[in-house]
Amino acid sequence: MSHAYGPVPRKEDARFIRGQGTYVDDIKLPGMLHGAILRSPLAHARIVAVDANAALAHPSVVAVLTGEDLAERGMAWMPTVFGDVQAVLATDKVRFQGQEVAFVVATDRYAARDALELIVVDYEPLPPLIDPLTALDPGAPVIREDLPDGNRVFDWTAGDKPATDAAFAAADVVVGCDMIYPRSHPAPLETCGAIADYDAVNGRLTLWSTSQAPHAHRVMYAALTGIPEHKIRIVSPDLGGGFGAKVPIYPGYLCAVAASQATGRPVKWVEDRSESLMSTAFARDYHMHGEIAATADGEILGLRARVLADHGAFNAAAQPSKFPAGFFHIFTGSYRTRAAYCEVTGVFTNKAPGGVAYSCSFRITEAVYLVERLTDMLARRLGMDPAELRMRNLLRPEQFPYTGPTGWQYDSGDYPRALRLALDMAGYDELRREQAERRARGEYMGIGLSFFTEGVGAGPRSHMDIMGLAMSDGADLRVHPTGKAVLAVSVQTQGQGHETTFAQLVAEELGLSPDDVDVVHGDTDRTPFGLGTYGSRSTPVSGAAAVVAARKVRERARLVAAAMFEASPDDLEWLDGKWRVRGDPDQALGIAEIAMAAHSTIELPTGIEGHLDASAVYNPPNLTFPFGAYICVTDVDPGTGEVKVRRFIAVDDCGVRINPMIVEGQVHRGLADGIGIALMQAISFDEIGNCLSGSFMDYLLPTSLECPSPELGATVTPSPHHPVGAKGIGESATVGSPPAVVNSVVDALAPFGVTHADMPLTPANVWLAIQAAGRLSSG
Amino acid sequence: MSHAYGPVPRKEDARFIRGQGTYVDDIKLPGMLHGAILRSPLAHARIVAVDANAALAHPSVVAVLTGEDLAERGMAWMPTVFGDVQAVLATDKVRFQGQEVAFVVATDRYAARDALELIVVDYEPLPPLIDPLTALDPGAPVIREDLPDGNRVFDWTAGDKPATDAAFAAADVVVGCDMIYPRSHPAPLETCGAIADYDAVNGRLTLWSTSQAPHAHRVMYAALTGIPEHKIRIVSPDLGGGFGAKVPIYPGYLCAVAASQATGRPVKWVEDRSESLMSTAFARDYHMHGEIAATADGEILGLRARVLADHGAFNAAAQPSKFPAGFFHIFTGSYRTRAAYCEVTGVFTNKAPGGVAYSCSFRITEAVYLVERLTDMLARRLGMDPAELRMRNLLRPEQFPYTGPTGWQYDSGDYPRALRLALDMAGYDELRREQAERRARGEYMGIGLSFFTEGVGAGPRSHMDIMGLAMSDGADLRVHPTGKAVLAVSVQTQGQGHETTFAQLVAEELGLSPDDVDVVHGDTDRTPFGLGTYGSRSTPVSGAAAVVAARKVRERARLVAAAMFEASPDDLEWLDGKWRVRGDPDQALGIAEIAMAAHSTIELPTGIEGHLDASAVYNPPNLTFPFGAYICVTDVDPGTGEVKVRRFIAVDDCGVRINPMIVEGQVHRGLADGIGIALMQAISFDEIGNCLSGSFMDYLLPTSLECPSPELGATVTPSPHHPVGAKGIGESATVGSPPAVVNSVVDALAPFGVTHADMPLTPANVWLAIQAAGRLSSG
Repeated sequence: MSHAYGPVPRKEDARFIRGQGTYVDDIKLPGMLHGAILRSPLAHARIVAVDANAALAHPSVVAVLTGEDLAERGMAWMPTVFGDVQAVLATDKVRFQGQEVAFVVATDRYAARDALELIVVDYEPLPPLIDPLTALDPGAPVIREDLPDGNRVFDWTAGDKPATDAAFAAADVVVGCDMIYPRSHPAPLETCGAIADYDAVNGRLTLWSTSQAPHAHRVMYAALTGIPEHKIRIVSPDLGGGFGAKVPIYPGYLCAVAASQATGRPVKWVEDRSESLMSTAFARDYHMHGEIAATADGEILGLRARVLADHGAFNAAAQPSKFPAGFFHIFTGSYRTRAAYCEVTGVFTNKAPGGVAYSCSFRITEAVYLVERLTDMLARRLGMDPAELRMRNLLRPEQFPYTGPTGWQYDSGDYPRALRLALDMAGYDELRREQAERRARGEYMGIGLSFFTEGVGAGPRSHMDIMGLAMSDGADLRVHPTGKAVLAVSVQTQGQGHETTFAQLVAEELGLSPDDVDVVHGDTDRTPFGLGTYGSRSTPVSGAAAVVAARKVRERARLVAAAMFEASPDDLEWLDGKWRVRGDPDQALGIAEIAMAAHSTIELPTGIEGHLDASAVYNPPNLTFPFGAYICVTDVDPGTGEVKVRRFIAVDDCGVRINPMIVEGQVHRGLADGIGIALMQAISFDEIGNCLSGSFMDYLLPTSLECPSPELGATVTPSPHHPVGAKGIGESATVGSPPAVVNSVVDALAPFGVTHADMPLTPANVWLAIQAAGRLSSG
Repeated sequence: MSHAYGPVPRKEDARFIRGQGTYVDDIKLPGMLHGAILRSPLAHARIVAVDANAALAHPSVVAVLTGEDLAERGMAWMPTVFGDVQAVLATDKVRFQGQEVAFVVATDRYAARDALELIVVDYEPLPPLIDPLTALDPGAPVIREDLPDGNRVFDWTAGDKPATDAAFAAADVVVGCDMIYPRSHPAPLETCGAIADYDAVNGRLTLWSTSQAPHAHRVMYAALTGIPEHKIRIVSPDLGGGFGAKVPIYPGYLCAVAASQATGRPVKWVEDRSESLMSTAFARDYHMHGEIAATADGEILGLRARVLADHGAFNAAAQPSKFPAGFFHIFTGSYRTRAAYCEVTGVFTNKAPGGVAYSCSFRITEAVYLVERLTDMLARRLGMDPAELRMRNLLRPEQFPYTGPTGWQYDSGDYPRALRLALDMAGYDELRREQAERRARGEYMGIGLSFFTEGVGAGPRSHMDIMGLAMSDGADLRVHPTGKAVLAVSVQTQGQGHETTFAQLVAEELGLSPDDVDVVHGDTDRTPFGLGTYGSRSTPVSGAAAVVAARKVRERARLVAAAMFEASPDDLEWLDGKWRVRGDPDQALGIAEIAMAAHSTIELPTGIEGHLDASAVYNPPNLTFPFGAYICVTDVDPGTGEVKVRRFIAVDDCGVRINPMIVEGQVHRGLADGIGIALMQAISFDEIGNCLSGSFMDYLLPTSLECPSPELGATVTPSPHHPVGAKGIGESATVGSPPAVVNSVVDALAPFGVTHADMPLTPANVWLAIQAAGRLSSG
């Protein structure tokens, strides 16, 4: 019987709504200095000399750090969180436009920015490598002399090639397509920033930073600065979104650390929006060729993909270890196939570092997009309805737990039920009739479907890691004498509502109100180790740790209650939020009464510790696999290429919902994300590597005008891999919605013969796709 | 084999020596206001009216709180930590000079103090009760109308009266004496203070305060303010001494809280030295009659005491529960006796609240003083050497564990060994020869001995409590991936060196260096529950919890190491700071290597949690009983009454010494304390309750001129009640030294017939004692 789950208003809203959140830039320390970064105007150039004398002479400038200065401290290069290295301040050459070259520290932010212009850098331009398709050509410019393998980041395959080739050979029909998942930027409300405060007397570093993974960062700072780990405190205060972009460490953070050590004062660095758009680690940038093979009646037989991944100049994320392409290898998605095979090659180019997972389990977005586009193409080729084709091939409930062709085991699902619900909510058949009528009137309405499965909640057994650190997350739960509880978790909220959801998880286990449970996060001094929030792992991993800790507390409370009742612990049962004497349920003790006793001078039996605390470390047995069926209805104007999203129906199954209001909020956010990705957003470069999308004038984000109020539905298939059956939901809609939008637009344009168009489907791109299809008739 | 114990320099000295400690008054918050307290000039008066209008009109004054204002918030009265209540701001009447009447909040401290003079209080004077000996007289002024029992705090007895009377009846000799242990004040370097910061948006209170017991205080603040416990954070930053005076909550703290709630801004209140000396809770003030019965050859047969304890107007400490007189009931001290009996009565008077334990297990100071004075008197009466009498009656090693006549079990000891060492160090026989020679020359040299046993390290089974809360203390130990550790403890250092000693305790168990272990304390947000530091309980209780937590971590490390070795945990042994394969000790893993593995992606066997943390709650099986033999050599000028301490020999046995340098530092401090108490310090009042010792001009503290460099010796008798055999040492010298000094002075004055003189032995009091003895001859 649940009493704490439900649409509880978010506890964090009290401060956010009143403008009382505390973000990095809100923190002001006595004597604090301000840093600014000089960035390279060139994408590829040798650094001949850096002259900072004029800047140092500026009356407000306290210090200037160059790559040479950092090299003396052993800090010119840093490891990235996923196993590459990255220049903090360039010493030998610059490798992308916007790369960090020098760091000015001044008494205010304005002076620091002004003084940047006083630094003279002598660059010797080098030919830039921009197009990833040429990266492995003989004679291509070499970007990373520090690596043995030229511009190749990795080569990696998954699946069974002979079986896949055989499946394709036996197929009645094969459909294939080149497609690009463009370079994308999550553009969080708050850009990246840090304040470093080095205390030379005690040898301690406190670093407030926009970090999704404070504990992992701390290990890295310890290795790089030589400050012992236990003397470093990383605080992630309120974060205005992260979406994966705040998993890496950025050079600005380390410059602030070095500058605080050099000046003996706190140093703040906060990037502006242009800096963020030009140099924050990017996502996507997958150049894919996909093929699908099927029987004539629409049974999918095989899937094949060749992928070139553009990682930019440094590899901020993709880990060249067991699964360098991340979750791309579960690219068979939600369908039964006989065989599948993919090859992924990562390359370096003269662009800002890439490879982060923007609101998705790393690379699953691209995989879902690929298979959902191919499915639609296959339906078109076969003359089948795309819903019917999907229903025919979806995994069946009785197949779970299901082990896919690349070896991963999906936990639970009832896919047809979700798709049926979405079709019912949409009034699918009626929509198709309406579409036919409109086409007859020369109106181009599209109906796009997607069905996605995501693998989220990575743990140590998922073989994904950050710096070799385990993805087991801790939870420390302390119940105070008056029965009020504080839960400290390793994960870091960026706005997802952990303070509410986790309080509900604990309250449910202990018979408390969510108001009685405070959640602490984002401070390495106060929280157990763990790898942070990304890949929708907070509820699946850290939430599970919270539940396990709460259950440990409950068992400890049972022993105390037994002493209070002078009964055997075995004679007690947990019923309706209290420990009760079996057979005499009026003899009952709630957690608050037991907590006071556990902290009081009652005589506890030997062997029972006082207090009422517990810790847990959760190693999930596997990922959890949320899934969903999405339907997007668009209206496309073939004259202007403008796309309007008329309806969006989203049925999500994330297992048991702790707080349905927060779940729906996450879906709202993700749908806006997906609509933006599909229709507007792309980071682009000219042929010499100038970033063309360095402001919100060029990198467009959707507003409420572009996003319809979505129609949300839910099915609930509990996860057997989670103590309360919950899966992650944070990223589902970002993953699932872009193919629905693109399928919808392509569906709208079917009369023109358009079979595919690459994102973003801006008016210009849509118009060009129509032109390219060569049929301008009103058909 | 110990590698981490030893005279390691104190880790905290890095900041203290450089003036970089952070005390409450060093903390400055944005927008902070400053409070000042209006105090009663009268010891006993009815409050007719309080008019704050003129003060409120002061341009810098933001708010004025009166008792009425607090009454509206339900905060006019507060519970004391030991079960009484106390007025925060007086509403009905004032009960001692210096009592809190109003609280002014202004933009700076000076304005707040100035504005106090603008408040008009109309007092109706009442007859004051100052002499505790008249407190129970019929017709005595009634101080506490809120209590049913007039001016009586408690009546309490311990021991066997008939058996004691029988022992006295059978004795050859009975010696008795009235003696006063004067009212005393620890006068810590830092006075009391607090900063309250109430955050109305989040409903959170942060309170920085000079608190020796932050967790217990939090429970009280939660009850009094209605703010839930988990929304209250109490921080005790660096404290400049506490000595028991910072165990209670003071009205100023609560005024700061109410003022922050009323103004919405942080409010600081720090008392000045006069306020501290007049109103900080006092210690001692025992009016005792003691008797000792013995055989003609010096065998002690019985002890008897009647005590009147002056608790002032409110009972800040003495708990009217099972042991209202605290440890006084082990007043038989270090000696075998057939029987003992004591009666203690506590009374209220019109003085500042009293009853705190100033550097001692509550009331043991007075008990040791009584028995050590009586022992000396008995020796004089019998014509025995006081050392010989003590040696004859000391408990023998084979008697341990020893259960005293009031039921307490002493853990371990070799008392004769300690006394023999002290006598040897002193060159006792030679000193006695010298004394005789000097007397012959008209020089009055005294040799005073004391032998003390203290019971320290109270836990839940000691039946002493604060607000009914248990004295079990927690320790949370976290080993970070790189093998650096952080230990969070419930106790709060006031300068005792916990950051070093506790680091050594953990380092020893884990094969680390003390530098690898940081100790966190004094912040309820970061530390486990516990009752704080007083009664020398840090090492006995919290230190034990730290050791238990470290051993849990070591066992967890064994499981991880076994997985790394692919061996059975049973095949590993802990040897020389590492887990080693039994029989192949070169296969070894230290904690740092194991910690990294426990946080990494190695496959840990099912059932083994990752990370390397552990928590422990320690419920000591009993007190630990440190003891010591002290010898004080004085030179007394009978013409002026001046006393010079020439030598002080102190042999302490506090069990196993973790850091002998810190132990010796504690003894140095305590000896200075005891010399001050014996010779200079006393809080005194005139007949209408005016405090006569409100500054350091009147309340004298010893300096290095009055304190010789002591000669320290040690014996080591490990405690079986502690995991590494340590006992507490913080207060031993404060407890043990005053009787040695007084015995020495009385010994010096023996030729004048002086048999006793009450502390403080100021020149005037010594001179008067000589006069009273009636023999002004040159002896």
